Amino acid sequence: MHSIAQYQEIVSTHFKSLSTPNEPKGLYDPITYILSLGGKRLRPVLTLMTTEIFDVDYNKAINAATAIEVFHNFSLIHDDIMDDAPLRRGKETVHEKWDLNTGILSGDAMLILAYQYFEEYEPIVFHQLAKLFSKTALEVCEGQQYDVDFETRDDVTIAEYLKMIEYKTAVLVGAAMKMGAIVAETSEENANLIYDFGINLGIAFQLQDDYLDAFGNPETFGKQIGGDIIENKKTYLYLKAMEFSTPENKEMLSHLFSVQPSDNSDKIASVKTIFDESGASATTQDAILNYTQKSFEILSKIDISEDKKKILRKFGEQLMNRNV
Amino acid sequence: MHSIAQYQEIVSTHFKSLSTPNEPKGLYDPITYILSLGGKRLRPVLTLMTTEIFDVDYNKAINAATAIEVFHNFSLIHDDIMDDAPLRRGKETVHEKWDLNTGILSGDAMLILAYQYFEEYEPIVFHQLAKLFSKTALEVCEGQQYDVDFETRDDVTIAEYLKMIEYKTAVLVGAAMKMGAIVAETSEENANLIYDFGINLGIAFQLQDDYLDAFGNPETFGKQIGGDIIENKKTYLYLKAMEFSTPENKEMLSHLFSVQPSDNSDKIASVKTIFDESGASATTQDAILNYTQKSFEILSKIDISEDKKKILRKFGEQLMNRNV
Repeated sequence: MHSIAQYQEIVSTHFKSLSTPNEPKGLYDPITYILSLGGKRLRPVLTLMTTEIFDVDYNKAINAATAIEVFHNFSLIHDDIMDDAPLRRGKETVHEKWDLNTGILSGDAMLILAYQYFEEYEPIVFHQLAKLFSKTALEVCEGQQYDVDFETRDDVTIAEYLKMIEYKTAVLVGAAMKMGAIVAETSEENANLIYDFGINLGIAFQLQDDYLDAFGNPETFGKQIGGDIIENKKTYLYLKAMEFSTPENKEMLSHLFSVQPSDNSDKIASVKTIFDESGASATTQDAILNYTQKSFEILSKIDISEDKKKILRKFGEQLMNRNV
Repeated sequence: MHSIAQYQEIVSTHFKSLSTPNEPKGLYDPITYILSLGGKRLRPVLTLMTTEIFDVDYNKAINAATAIEVFHNFSLIHDDIMDDAPLRRGKETVHEKWDLNTGILSGDAMLILAYQYFEEYEPIVFHQLAKLFSKTALEVCEGQQYDVDFETRDDVTIAEYLKMIEYKTAVLVGAAMKMGAIVAETSEENANLIYDFGINLGIAFQLQDDYLDAFGNPETFGKQIGGDIIENKKTYLYLKAMEFSTPENKEMLSHLFSVQPSDNSDKIASVKTIFDESGASATTQDAILNYTQKSFEILSKIDISEDKKKILRKFGEQLMNRNV
């Protein structure tokens, strides 16, 4: 087994040496560009790590890991178009640097390329990987659609919100790990357990992201603090605050989430006060802890050595104690 | 074996009974919509027909045929966005009826759904189908990119143009037929020959489309006559006319393809005269005949009965004698 940092280095080196076709340049240059922007490479790292958790050399999983990361970057290109985002990882988004049509078509090509990385596996493993991948990719699309739908709805329930983040974020974490298990050819039971471990950790991760977006350390959190508040995003914090607040605070929060002032500092401060006073902040932290603990319960059932369980538990703890 | 009309009926009935997931509606309603618009269903018909050409029940190929048609409709949704097209088969395009984001995301979901239709095949056949599908889908993206690139280039060669239409159109025809061969589990040699048959027929078909766009019967041709001329599309006819014309006509043609008059009738008439007088029309018809004959030569090498060859030859002739 390697450390997370080592797996990140392996993935990073692999992506630097990765070659896509050259022509037509208008199609492939944007793909090379977005893949070179880096990022935490969390999903492919999970695939490699899981393969070694099940005692198989991570090299066997490098193509599956590549597929997952290429897919993730495909979804970023298309999401950035939909969100009209100018920047991604501090650099111009593809549709900004090129144009809308390039973003659409290069994204499409990446989705297809992702499938091609599975081709080197023998048919039975390929079938399992491609099937899981398609199911997951479709769920990610559904999650994105729910996210879009929620923007114009004011009756989103906590259950709906949790389903949305499960589909939009957590299923890809679960699938990244399950792919490592499939490549390692462990038992179906182990593969399903590691998937559920990933799902729960993925939900905890996204709730943590919601929390840190409001309460993270501006020095270390990668994004602008209060970004979700500025965009009036109905996150777990908001939904819980609406549930718990006094009628007056509820009305104030509802009002604050209907305006877009040029200076957001007062708005962010007021919203954060309501998040705290209503108990929404504490409940969100409880939920993060609950999902993390649930993932650890699932972990305990996986048929691997205690040492391996410890590695995964440590990984989960690191993820949850991050302030970035 | 059934007639083309019967296969069309089979595909049409199948698509009427096809169910996609219901929720979220914003994602799946546009998919149901575009699949209900109909069309000639040429590609899935070819898959079913090819399976029976190799003596296997077409029912075995229905999922592969569905995948091909779902993919084709995915590419129509995204192409219509890129072309800013308001209408598709006489009805509103998806991005017009809904919006840009819906067109992007529902298209993405269709590309994934297409892969899912292959899942019911056993791993070895699945591997072959998915591999051919990914290769083809990527070529279709490349063809679309070349088509976009050619709009702003004035030095496109005939060889480049032929490669573009091969990728954008013919490979999907070849793949549709090869998938029928893969499902029928015929020899690799037969599968490759039927692919080459489809490629050549597909190129002939697209050149025929170029020709009919200018010289088709307005009563029976589905699209507006002169559509390519109005849009200044550098088709085979145009490239050959530029090659063959006198310097004066070359200059005139070049000028005509730089303007967009409100009334196009004079422009269309002048361009068609140059197409005829330069010999471009006759050369295009020759090329159509050559590609058709090449496909028939390939056909003669396939290891199937004379009766079966006759059916495919008749199909090719019908396609080439169409005036619609």
